[in-house]
Amino acid sequence: MELKKPYYAVIFTSLRTEGDLGYAKMAEEMETLAQKQPGFIGMESARDGLGITVSYWESLEAIADWKANMDHRQAQKNGIKTWYSWYKVRICKVEREYEFNT
Amino acid sequence: MELKKPYYAVIFTSLRTEGDLGYAKMAEEMETLAQKQPGFIGMESARDGLGITVSYWESLEAIADWKANMDHRQAQKNGIKTWYSWYKVRICKVEREYEFNT
Repeated sequence: MELKKPYYAVIFTSLRTEGDLGYAKMAEEMETLAQKQPGFIGMESARDGLGITVSYWESLEAIADWKANMDHRQAQKNGIKTWYSWYKVRICKVEREYEFNT
Repeated sequence: MELKKPYYAVIFTSLRTEGDLGYAKMAEEMETLAQKQPGFIGMESARDGLGITVSYWESLEAIADWKANMDHRQAQKNGIKTWYSWYKVRICKVEREYEFNT
């Protein structure tokens, strides 16, 4: 279905290091924090070995603001130092969508 | 990082029904099949309750061709009938990306 108003998705794909090392707490805090950001629409996560988190945003500006958020910046630094052995971030424009419900 | 050549992502988010019912076999077959499609770039999957599969494609035409693939159409039908209680498909244009490696 064509969207009336395009929105944006940030696909964050990652591989974790061994052990929790404060990761679960940070992940929860970052989700709570993201929800308070202007332009936040929603977030979906799954991990089994590979982790995929997709967050949805109203604009590229909202994504840039979230990237620049001070607490989030600290989490990004620790992410590189401690929690992830690899990650990739893709910023995407959602152009079409459709849904199925039983 | 700005992309030299934009590409496309299909974000497939889903909730499974109970039991395997041939799901694992189909999922493997569909991944093998997708890899043979023209314009296929890659695929990433994770599930813990919520399932997220992201496939990457060179063009919207490649995505349309994959959706129309006969074997894939059969899997889509069975997906609605048997394997999923809910799913959502988002077709996105990847506009920027960056990566971290230890």
